[in-house]
Amino acid sequence: MNAEPAAPRRAVQMFALAGIPAIEPGADLGALVGDAIEAATGGLCAGDVVVVCQKIVSKAEGRIVRLDDVEPSARARDFASSFGKQAQMIELALREATEVLRMQGGHLITASGKGVVAANSGIDRSNQTRPGYVTLLPLDADRSASLLREALAARFGAAPAVIVTDTFGRPWRLGQIDFAIGAAGLRVLDDHAGRSDWSGRELEHTVIAVADQLAAAAGLLMGKADGLPAVLVRGYSYAAGSEDAGDLVRPRDQDLFR
Amino acid sequence: MNAEPAAPRRAVQMFALAGIPAIEPGADLGALVGDAIEAATGGLCAGDVVVVCQKIVSKAEGRIVRLDDVEPSARARDFASSFGKQAQMIELALREATEVLRMQGGHLITASGKGVVAANSGIDRSNQTRPGYVTLLPLDADRSASLLREALAARFGAAPAVIVTDTFGRPWRLGQIDFAIGAAGLRVLDDHAGRSDWSGRELEHTVIAVADQLAAAAGLLMGKADGLPAVLVRGYSYAAGSEDAGDLVRPRDQDLFR
Repeated sequence: MNAEPAAPRRAVQMFALAGIPAIEPGADLGALVGDAIEAATGGLCAGDVVVVCQKIVSKAEGRIVRLDDVEPSARARDFASSFGKQAQMIELALREATEVLRMQGGHLITASGKGVVAANSGIDRSNQTRPGYVTLLPLDADRSASLLREALAARFGAAPAVIVTDTFGRPWRLGQIDFAIGAAGLRVLDDHAGRSDWSGRELEHTVIAVADQLAAAAGLLMGKADGLPAVLVRGYSYAAGSEDAGDLVRPRDQDLFR
Repeated sequence: MNAEPAAPRRAVQMFALAGIPAIEPGADLGALVGDAIEAATGGLCAGDVVVVCQKIVSKAEGRIVRLDDVEPSARARDFASSFGKQAQMIELALREATEVLRMQGGHLITASGKGVVAANSGIDRSNQTRPGYVTLLPLDADRSASLLREALAARFGAAPAVIVTDTFGRPWRLGQIDFAIGAAGLRVLDDHAGRSDWSGRELEHTVIAVADQLAAAAGLLMGKADGLPAVLVRGYSYAAGSEDAGDLVRPRDQDLFR
């Protein structure tokens, strides 16, 4: 009755990594995330993926700015006063931006870093340990991911894939989800071209943004409100490789919606 | 040393639901998905989420069209011949569309149904059991999700949340991920407004697209190439509610990128 070949049974587990303390500049993320992994699962297995949110990475790397120290430009002041925004925030977002996609109706959507598109260049006010301070995105989140990967490999013997995520809004859809802004140790794009589907026919060219799917999956456990800034994903079979999250950025000339 | 309150340890499991046969129009999805759940995990637990891909829903509902039966309009023929596309596909996509966002450079990006934005109105050629046929998106994927939820509740006693997903590209980023195009039994948006973060400060207004995060998570196991069209997510605590996937569609007047 069943015309399909039996597919292997597969399962993925995700563990929230609890107990990571408030992060201060200079904190040893590798040690703190490693402790949380040990507490949650006893250690790493081959093929594990460790997902950490941008916030703890930015804090550990000292990417923190006191808003009162920022001198807003006329452009930032005009925009902020028109829309009830904070001029220092707008100024910082403009300084971080490599491109302004939209600056209208109180919304400032920019590309920054390797081309990540986000509101206000991903600058974040919430979850701050100190009022009046904001976090900027890591200078190079792929490097941040690599460093964490190396620290965890040194401790546990197995090198996990590592993804750094942030939570962004999307065009066309309400609500935010998590995206990969940094990655190490896995191919962030999985190209299905040339494979066959379950009926033996060759698939149309499909490329899956594996690192973004992992980011969104981990986001299910990264409650913003409950101090869970890291997640361990176990049992997902990814392709090893040296691609980085910059490879997830669509080149401008292939983008219909800028 | 640890300034944070201890967070509860949490874990989520995802099971690929193997053994679902090729779906023909009129197939009893509830029975087939139910069988796969029973084989994978023995049954449903309270709080389970069942995620199924659009393809099997569309096939079961008979949303299949033979391309040779489609008479292309002049507009479809012009566009198709300019860019080496199949005129019947373009014609079908235009018929399904409620809005054309872009029709340029060989790309046809439309909104269809309740406002889901996708290339070619989500019409899909791959994974077909019969060459020359394509699947359209379900007429009402929220209703499809509700019907599956009811069938599974009747069989197992516990009503799971159900999400129907499809795989789409995104602006600004390369690669595709899975999105929720239908949902039943859970609030698709989780509003963090007014909650406190881990330091006790009130969060900025954050709304998480929970159903899209679940769709992307399940996508990790829904290999296009290996006959796994459904996934069971266990251990994720969602809010029950009657919102549907249409609630994930950003209203036109709030959208900066159309």
